[in-house]
Amino acid sequence: METNTTICAIATSPGNGAIAVIRLSGKDAVSITDKLFRSPSGKKLSKQLPNTIHFGSIYFKDKLIDEVLVSLFKAPYSYTGEDVVEISCHGSIFIQQQILQSLTQSGAILAQPGEFTLRAFINGKMDLSQAEGVADLIASESDAAHKMAMNQMRGGFSAEIGNLRGQLLNLCSLLELELDFSEEDVEFANRSDLNRLVNQVLKVIQHLTDSFSLGNVIKTGVPVAIVGKPNVGKSTLLNTLLQEERALVSEIAGTTRDSIEDVINIKGIRFRFIDTAGIRHTTDTIETLGIERTFSKISQASVILLLADVVCTKEEIQQQIKELKLTQDQHLIVIINKIDLHNKTEVEQRMGGSKTFNPYPVLFLSAKHHLYTDQLHDLLLNTVQSQALQTSDVVVSNVRHYEALKNALEASQRAATGLETDLPSDLIAQDIREILYYLGQITGEITTDEILGNIFSKFCIGK
Amino acid sequence: METNTTICAIATSPGNGAIAVIRLSGKDAVSITDKLFRSPSGKKLSKQLPNTIHFGSIYFKDKLIDEVLVSLFKAPYSYTGEDVVEISCHGSIFIQQQILQSLTQSGAILAQPGEFTLRAFINGKMDLSQAEGVADLIASESDAAHKMAMNQMRGGFSAEIGNLRGQLLNLCSLLELELDFSEEDVEFANRSDLNRLVNQVLKVIQHLTDSFSLGNVIKTGVPVAIVGKPNVGKSTLLNTLLQEERALVSEIAGTTRDSIEDVINIKGIRFRFIDTAGIRHTTDTIETLGIERTFSKISQASVILLLADVVCTKEEIQQQIKELKLTQDQHLIVIINKIDLHNKTEVEQRMGGSKTFNPYPVLFLSAKHHLYTDQLHDLLLNTVQSQALQTSDVVVSNVRHYEALKNALEASQRAATGLETDLPSDLIAQDIREILYYLGQITGEITTDEILGNIFSKFCIGK
Repeated sequence: METNTTICAIATSPGNGAIAVIRLSGKDAVSITDKLFRSPSGKKLSKQLPNTIHFGSIYFKDKLIDEVLVSLFKAPYSYTGEDVVEISCHGSIFIQQQILQSLTQSGAILAQPGEFTLRAFINGKMDLSQAEGVADLIASESDAAHKMAMNQMRGGFSAEIGNLRGQLLNLCSLLELELDFSEEDVEFANRSDLNRLVNQVLKVIQHLTDSFSLGNVIKTGVPVAIVGKPNVGKSTLLNTLLQEERALVSEIAGTTRDSIEDVINIKGIRFRFIDTAGIRHTTDTIETLGIERTFSKISQASVILLLADVVCTKEEIQQQIKELKLTQDQHLIVIINKIDLHNKTEVEQRMGGSKTFNPYPVLFLSAKHHLYTDQLHDLLLNTVQSQALQTSDVVVSNVRHYEALKNALEASQRAATGLETDLPSDLIAQDIREILYYLGQITGEITTDEILGNIFSKFCIGK
Repeated sequence: METNTTICAIATSPGNGAIAVIRLSGKDAVSITDKLFRSPSGKKLSKQLPNTIHFGSIYFKDKLIDEVLVSLFKAPYSYTGEDVVEISCHGSIFIQQQILQSLTQSGAILAQPGEFTLRAFINGKMDLSQAEGVADLIASESDAAHKMAMNQMRGGFSAEIGNLRGQLLNLCSLLELELDFSEEDVEFANRSDLNRLVNQVLKVIQHLTDSFSLGNVIKTGVPVAIVGKPNVGKSTLLNTLLQEERALVSEIAGTTRDSIEDVINIKGIRFRFIDTAGIRHTTDTIETLGIERTFSKISQASVILLLADVVCTKEEIQQQIKELKLTQDQHLIVIINKIDLHNKTEVEQRMGGSKTFNPYPVLFLSAKHHLYTDQLHDLLLNTVQSQALQTSDVVVSNVRHYEALKNALEASQRAATGLETDLPSDLIAQDIREILYYLGQITGEITTDEILGNIFSKFCIGK
């Protein structure tokens, strides 16, 4: 990893704005900026104090490019741990490009995606999982995802892993001490203590591994399919859900949110709605294809809302549930729509009450008239084990961490079995070292350029 | 104009980026931020020095929203002339919105478009034409537009106007002194001196008014139509021009430029290509409509490239020129295409040489094989009176300024005539006051809330 260059990039969102920020990091960050910057007092930036802001102009080859504010940070007290300069210019794309070109022609090179954060990692300002938290934080679109990423960026997860590693290193050294004195048959570590410790570690790793299903849901959203025969009100239901959500998100004018159309956010959890065509028995070839596609989409959903008209019979709905061929992991909510046209109590009695489709919950509502739709929010939320979110528990959301944890889990299971079956210390020590290895991958104590390249290439440029 | 509130807005381009900047301005900017900001040292921002940067966290109702850098500016040494705080946060839309909401719930109000710059104007940090320069600067997409806007923002135009106003005020006071002593028939101002001065002012205003046609072209680009019979190579010519341009603009990866398809930038001047259908005589009704539309578009162009196949005769081309019905202000360039298939010298001789379509220039080239296309750049550039750009002349680019200048010009012509025909001083003084009034409109000495509202509503939010 080359870090004796000085990198530069536009750090703000691309496009025109009131202002834009261009960031430099590296040993020549200040001297390169000084080549272009002229302050009214004539004082060079290199003579200024760190953490100060200076007004002046950027000139390149005697051409005035912009009037700017320059912020100065000196190593190691900066984001990257290197000297950092931030140039706040007028937000025209033209000016941004001109300043960037002037910088590259004055000795800076264009930063790769995530290179600022990579340098922060290399310079020990954060570990690898914290760096990944930064990217997740920027991408976070909901309260829960934001909270999870923030916790990871601030080192919550790292602390948990660090704690585990500390215990394991202790264990390992005791076991290895035994090996050194193996001929004397001394036992430095009390076996039952070891056993307790390994099982404790195992439990924590198991807990972290388990949290991934929640973490993944928080990060990517819960896929929900609304299915049902044609004309039962699928679109109306979706619109009703979206409208309520829209009212919430549009509190501030000018909020642009991409593809809000099919995402609703309930108490910080995002539910992504998968579009499906209506299901009915048909001999039409093209329609059959459409319905096949619907079933394939249903299989990708983790929550299915089966919508039926109030005039449906219980048996018809039960038949439809059967046809859905749900897996163990999928949640189903039965919704009887258009209740406004009928007496709710009567319909409920005719259907056989709220437990009639056990274990699946049933809801009687009117999507069109927004009757009883609130309960749907609660039922949707129930499909996510969201209790973890209420506490400050660490939640794993990163596939890379999950894979490493799964490997660590296997190794710790082997170690636990080994201790129980009284295997020789050197074999157990080998397992413990393996756990340490996988945990080290998460925080970046153990890493390769390839892994780093993989992680940081997914960052945006300028971070 | 209400300015005792504290305003806030996202100042960077909307969307996700590495970082985003949220700006506050007003007397409570620091105290509102202090409600949300926690620094590691616990020191309040109100106790910090101006022009310094501080790391810390934004909390709202004890919920951690982000780790940020806060820049402090104290009145009057800020963009707006008020206390200003800039919060540099992680560039997630979610975080930007959360911080903005926290600020509005802590006493700040959302800024209107251009409200920061409006405050800068009200607080005397810049005059009105400088403020308009800021908006133009952000919108500038070419070297020439950038230079023009920068000059305006930095007060080049204001200085010119200020200079004129100074001379006129002097003139006015002399004339009015005469009026006070009118019964004594004293002449304080030498009439020939006055005449010289008014004519000098007239000349400068005339020059500024004339510069608008160039300024407007620089700001909005030169509309160019490529016309000709079907299959003469119109698209190929456009592609050739665009390709050369593309190679220039894509020097830096990640440059996003909207609708580059039909704009080329030659030495800082933008040429906007208007799409036209091929012209031929037809009886087909729909095609006739298309051709009518072509002629209507031709009338909007200030440059017309008439493209003809190399096998065309001189007479055919002359006939086509006649049909274009060009106005005095339109420039025509005749282009004989597909020269690669023939001997260039022979074709030129057959056509009657380079002066055959006088006063219109003719060019022999091959769009497909990029032969002699460079000369087209020079000819296009010649259609713009670009000499003014070489000097540091003030160029008027704003329609509002142009209208005010036209009114000022009329009044100064009246004043000049009045002096020549020895009209009474009070009538001449009236004309001079009128010139002063119109010039004052440009810099904002004379303005109304309506005018201000009109100007600043066109700004982006956050500026």
